[in-house]
Amino acid sequence: MKNRIITIGREFGSGGRTIGRMAAQQLGIPCYDQEIIEKLVEKGGFSAEYIKERGELMVSEGWNAVLGRTGGPTRQDQLWVMQKNLILELAEQGPCVIVGRCADFILSHREDVLKVFVRSTMQKRSQRILQVYGQREESAEQRLRIKDHQRAEYYKMYTGHEWGGSRYYDLVLNSAKFSLEACVKTIIDLYQADFD
Amino acid sequence: MKNRIITIGREFGSGGRTIGRMAAQQLGIPCYDQEIIEKLVEKGGFSAEYIKERGELMVSEGWNAVLGRTGGPTRQDQLWVMQKNLILELAEQGPCVIVGRCADFILSHREDVLKVFVRSTMQKRSQRILQVYGQREESAEQRLRIKDHQRAEYYKMYTGHEWGGSRYYDLVLNSAKFSLEACVKTIIDLYQADFD
Repeated sequence: MKNRIITIGREFGSGGRTIGRMAAQQLGIPCYDQEIIEKLVEKGGFSAEYIKERGELMVSEGWNAVLGRTGGPTRQDQLWVMQKNLILELAEQGPCVIVGRCADFILSHREDVLKVFVRSTMQKRSQRILQVYGQREESAEQRLRIKDHQRAEYYKMYTGHEWGGSRYYDLVLNSAKFSLEACVKTIIDLYQADFD
Repeated sequence: MKNRIITIGREFGSGGRTIGRMAAQQLGIPCYDQEIIEKLVEKGGFSAEYIKERGELMVSEGWNAVLGRTGGPTRQDQLWVMQKNLILELAEQGPCVIVGRCADFILSHREDVLKVFVRSTMQKRSQRILQVYGQREESAEQRLRIKDHQRAEYYKMYTGHEWGGSRYYDLVLNSAKFSLEACVKTIIDLYQADFD
């Protein structure tokens, strides 16, 4: 069988998004991340900023969905459903890379998906976010801890699984150990290898 | 920097031991697994069978070490120390592959170690152990669950870490998704890539 889709989960500051874009470029297939946000906006009327902020972050109203509030689906629940449907649709359209957004879970019924998670060390991630996003009021480490917590909570809430847990991925790479190019090459080689 | 050592942790039935041997053979470096057992026997006087059975398995007396028994180190504790010293020594001697035995943890102070974990699905592992080891009284799935539990307990006891937790490895591969050859190639390519 041949793979069609690559999903990339990633720790903030691991370079996972960049790796996804580089892989897509080398393979000549689309990479969805910001695009998902834009398509969602077109379809559902959320502001791009709201989606960017809430799309992968756990927010307090989200818990209500789990804890049995009576007010029906929250704005975040609606967003989850829209993202999910969009990802299912994109996967039908053709080969692509999808970064984040629980795409690995959403596409777990398909066999033609290479599920990747990119992690790194706290030290290398701190260096990278300072380099890419610059200084902020909180320390780099604080920002990473907050993001990790939010992504893990969001993932757990909508998938029931542990974010970054090795059993949910086909390939986990520690980008602190390898160059981005080596990570991209590994992903492409395994994407292109046939499997049973 | 160049890697010198490859450590391979693996789920029972994932093919991780075979992958380690194949990688070592292609690289022309030794692979330690059975060899460790034999060297231990020479050094410490344990019977090969005892070491094979207890070397990676959690046994009830082992808990005493953690739970504060007064009788001094158990036979299993002594074995742990001997294995640890041997692995540190082997890593000094030259490039090699070390399968299992918490080698990733024991060598975690070194930067020239590529830490790999090989996992697979319950279905593929069941098929593999029936093929490699044949039928037993317990079902393949029962055997896998018992082994998983024992390895996880042993690893946790002596390292304090979660066995197979993605944060402790540089590379995690799902061998249900890839051929053994593709896993070996990935490991060799990343082993040979330079890093900072």
